[in-house]
Amino acid sequence: MPESASVYETALGASTRETITLLGRDLAGEVMGEVGFGELAFWLATQRRPTPGETRLFEAVLAALADHGFTPTAIAARLTWLSAPDSVQGALAAGLLGGGSRFLGVTEDCGRFLHEALSAPGRDIPTTDEGWDALAVDTVQRAKAAGRRVPGLGHHVHKERDPRTPRLFQIAAEEGVRGPHLDLLAAVGRVHTEVLGRRLPLNGAGVCGAALADLGLPLELLRGFALLARTAGLIGQLAEELRTPVANEIFLSVDLHNRPVPPVPSATRWTSGGR
Amino acid sequence: MPESASVYETALGASTRETITLLGRDLAGEVMGEVGFGELAFWLATQRRPTPGETRLFEAVLAALADHGFTPTAIAARLTWLSAPDSVQGALAAGLLGGGSRFLGVTEDCGRFLHEALSAPGRDIPTTDEGWDALAVDTVQRAKAAGRRVPGLGHHVHKERDPRTPRLFQIAAEEGVRGPHLDLLAAVGRVHTEVLGRRLPLNGAGVCGAALADLGLPLELLRGFALLARTAGLIGQLAEELRTPVANEIFLSVDLHNRPVPPVPSATRWTSGGR
Amino acid sequence: MPESASVYETALGASTRETITLLGRDLAGEVMGEVGFGELAFWLATQRRPTPGETRLFEAVLAALADHGFTPTAIAARLTWLSAPDSVQGALAAGLLGGGSRFLGVTEDCGRFLHEALSAPGRDIPTTDEGWDALAVDTVQRAKAAGRRVPGLGHHVHKERDPRTPRLFQIAAEEGVRGPHLDLLAAVGRVHTEVLGRRLPLNGAGVCGAALADLGLPLELLRGFALLARTAGLIGQLAEELRTPVANEIFLSVDLHNRPVPPVPSATRWTSGGR
Amino acid sequence: MPESASVYETALGASTRETITLLGRDLAGEVMGEVGFGELAFWLATQRRPTPGETRLFEAVLAALADHGFTPTAIAARLTWLSAPDSVQGALAAGLLGGGSRFLGVTEDCGRFLHEALSAPGRDIPTTDEGWDALAVDTVQRAKAAGRRVPGLGHHVHKERDPRTPRLFQIAAEEGVRGPHLDLLAAVGRVHTEVLGRRLPLNGAGVCGAALADLGLPLELLRGFALLARTAGLIGQLAEELRTPVANEIFLSVDLHNRPVPPVPSATRWTSGGR
Repeated sequence: MPESASVYETALGASTRETITLLGRDLAGEVMGEVGFGELAFWLATQRRPTPGETRLFEAVLAALADHGFTPTAIAARLTWLSAPDSVQGALAAGLLGGGSRFLGVTEDCGRFLHEALSAPGRDIPTTDEGWDALAVDTVQRAKAAGRRVPGLGHHVHKERDPRTPRLFQIAAEEGVRGPHLDLLAAVGRVHTEVLGRRLPLNGAGVCGAALADLGLPLELLRGFALLARTAGLIGQLAEELRTPVANEIFLSVDLHNRPVPPVPSATRWTSGGR
Repeated sequence: MPESASVYETALGASTRETITLLGRDLAGEVMGEVGFGELAFWLATQRRPTPGETRLFEAVLAALADHGFTPTAIAARLTWLSAPDSVQGALAAGLLGGGSRFLGVTEDCGRFLHEALSAPGRDIPTTDEGWDALAVDTVQRAKAAGRRVPGLGHHVHKERDPRTPRLFQIAAEEGVRGPHLDLLAAVGRVHTEVLGRRLPLNGAGVCGAALADLGLPLELLRGFALLARTAGLIGQLAEELRTPVANEIFLSVDLHNRPVPPVPSATRWTSGGR
Repeated sequence: MPESASVYETALGASTRETITLLGRDLAGEVMGEVGFGELAFWLATQRRPTPGETRLFEAVLAALADHGFTPTAIAARLTWLSAPDSVQGALAAGLLGGGSRFLGVTEDCGRFLHEALSAPGRDIPTTDEGWDALAVDTVQRAKAAGRRVPGLGHHVHKERDPRTPRLFQIAAEEGVRGPHLDLLAAVGRVHTEVLGRRLPLNGAGVCGAALADLGLPLELLRGFALLARTAGLIGQLAEELRTPVANEIFLSVDLHNRPVPPVPSATRWTSGGR
Repeated sequence: MPESASVYETALGASTRETITLLGRDLAGEVMGEVGFGELAFWLATQRRPTPGETRLFEAVLAALADHGFTPTAIAARLTWLSAPDSVQGALAAGLLGGGSRFLGVTEDCGRFLHEALSAPGRDIPTTDEGWDALAVDTVQRAKAAGRRVPGLGHHVHKERDPRTPRLFQIAAEEGVRGPHLDLLAAVGRVHTEVLGRRLPLNGAGVCGAALADLGLPLELLRGFALLARTAGLIGQLAEELRTPVANEIFLSVDLHNRPVPPVPSATRWTSGGR
């Protein structure tokens, strides 16, 4: 193994004795004080500086996902900080670890689902509303046939209408950054009732995924942007816990209502002669 | 919502002013000093006390998975401890977070794969070697047809034979705890060459998954046992780092060989008129 | 930088095409089936194989710390799994991240506190009960003078007596592995009332720390053993969650009782002319 | 326990069937598209909307801390993603867990150190440069006498001058948001040589801590803002890993250079008759 070959390329942070660069720019002079934090996060993820319109849509998505009150992730972060107050990083990490398939996954799932439909072999990107509707019908039918839910449809609280949904379409339109993922999702919103037999709202998390995909952010990391937004939200949760602590009360509300029950063996060993 | 209904049942730890119980037993008198740690972990997971033979096979599996030297997870744990020496829990957690689909997932994947084959509708558990071979041929053929890898086959280092494999079969036989998952995996080892056209060794991680499944441990948590084993291994890694530190050298071996390159924009925005 | 110098030594896992070793032993032949899991964890941490008596005390400590019911860490792990069911490693890591100064820290704090007292310059290890009592009085007085709590004293539930405490002393005595940390802690138990003016029980977590220190385990990692024990407990929690789920109910018990309040600005900017 | 008392107040996210609010504002109409992401993070942490000048300084701090190339945290995140590609949240969490006392702690330490000096009993906030110099001399002398390092002084790479330092002071001045923490740190920069006998640069991470403290952000969470910045940086690292993977090469550069050595027992058991 030729060790001299081990060189690790990066376009991110680099420094010498005199200088610090980030993304090939002088950090102090060209980035600090010049680039907003949302803009920088976009730039770091794509290595391309977003336009103001792209930044506005991106930051609207982050705002939509930042905090949803006492979610399991917020509760987990507060409980972890209660238990290990010496480690802010541990509390934030514990909160982020809930960012999986169920609670934060819709954003990623929806972006990927739409992208798959758009990039199917032989697929032409529609140019009319009728064309989008036809593609949407086909897409929802295929999902239904595969026994697969359509991500982006339905919300357990906002059963009629998720207020984030029209706002995101509005901002994308205002900034001229609406692309095919949002177009297809809008069409899914129009046509799904005829295929599925019931009307469901487009949820905000799904629209966020479509918007992030339109912006050219990497599909493999769409969940990462939900997590970035959530990091800001979790800091808000911990700051509130500092002033109005509830974690200990939550803990006690569970622990004081525990009821010891006898063990119930979950399983016996499998034997080849039958269990 | 009737709040008085919120009672949380558990058969695990419970205490009163005078007593502590675990799994319905008196912790101090019946568990401490009486139950080994592997045995206890099994008991906690199934709420059933394992037999000595089951414990021996279980602990052999944990030994097989505890530490594999400088894995990505071991390196991540050491680097995290270097960076945050105040938080042992953070270093262990960082190490465990690498326990996903690629490096520790084979154990879970193999257990589930075998279980799926065994519990297919209409499936009779074979009673002869020929019967097992036929089932194994069918199972491997289906996997091949579905373009799916057979978990448990192949190893990037032990290309001929993984020394853990025969040992686990031997212990299971000695203790009389070999069940259908191990039987099917053994048959896969015998027949896969005729289906796949090449001979691959049964890897130890896969055999571990079959053994855990035979022992009746919950399939949803097979990865959890690999992580339990790895926790002991990671403590060993950190203890060694205390005495023979290498994390800083690893860090420098990367950082001193970084090569700044210009950013390469990864993507542009999608537009409905074409990218 | 001479790259050829970068060699990373380890006595833990190593493998070649034909062999796997762990701690210099043949993994398959000398460890699997031969070494219990608690014994192996001890061996990995110290690179020395414990005696059966040492193993029994060590495993008793792990049993004492494995699970305490609905602790904040157990709740955090269950909530994280609810939220990200695809990632067992994330749920376990989230649970471990609560293993900090408050809930799991007593074990480490107590071991370190006793060790500090025993290794103070000019300190002779006592050889009589009177000698231990004198050292304990001095140790508690110094802690009191420094406004420092004596770790290992007091328990919020077991206000009279922690049942784990006499059991650990008993096992240590039965196995002939009681050493100076346990001796000093026992003396602290005898004498603290005269110094502090009130009687407190020795808590089990503190005695565990003393026992681990006596066994020669690294002080920097005492918390790590509590975390190892807790990993087994957390797997038990997740296994129980599989069968008797409570996480969603805990989440709802918080979320459905949220009360939106107006923001209260926490602080204004500091100005040098006064806030 | 009166259960009806369990109400959990929050000023963060809340929703009804029709509405979503955040910080008491209508999320869709008043936050999304109206509030930048840095501004929102500040607002969440303090429950007070920052001024544009405060936001600019805050975002400059986040830019300063976002990414420093191949740090241990970046490497840990990449290795974790390599090992568990199914879990972006795990990779980000692993990266954040390195945000402890050593690599990201300076920001928090410096903010707290300055705050302690400013809020000592009987302390008057100086109003002249001479006053600040006198306070700085006293502060550095006390640290020296206590054998304590002055956080914010010195940098292992930028030995002469950290380019972020003057830039942060400049932005604070331009925006009229320089407060006493920055004033005191500036004075420490002027006077420390006479106390410590050598000239050290003010490092950027320390100036960031002073700036965050001046902005009124909670001292207990200063590290949290470094972690927020780093989350964006880690997403950049993972995005780069997607396109120019290095994690496997880093792993191999360690693993292929491992050298198995015999175990060296770290310790023997302590016995009261001497070790």
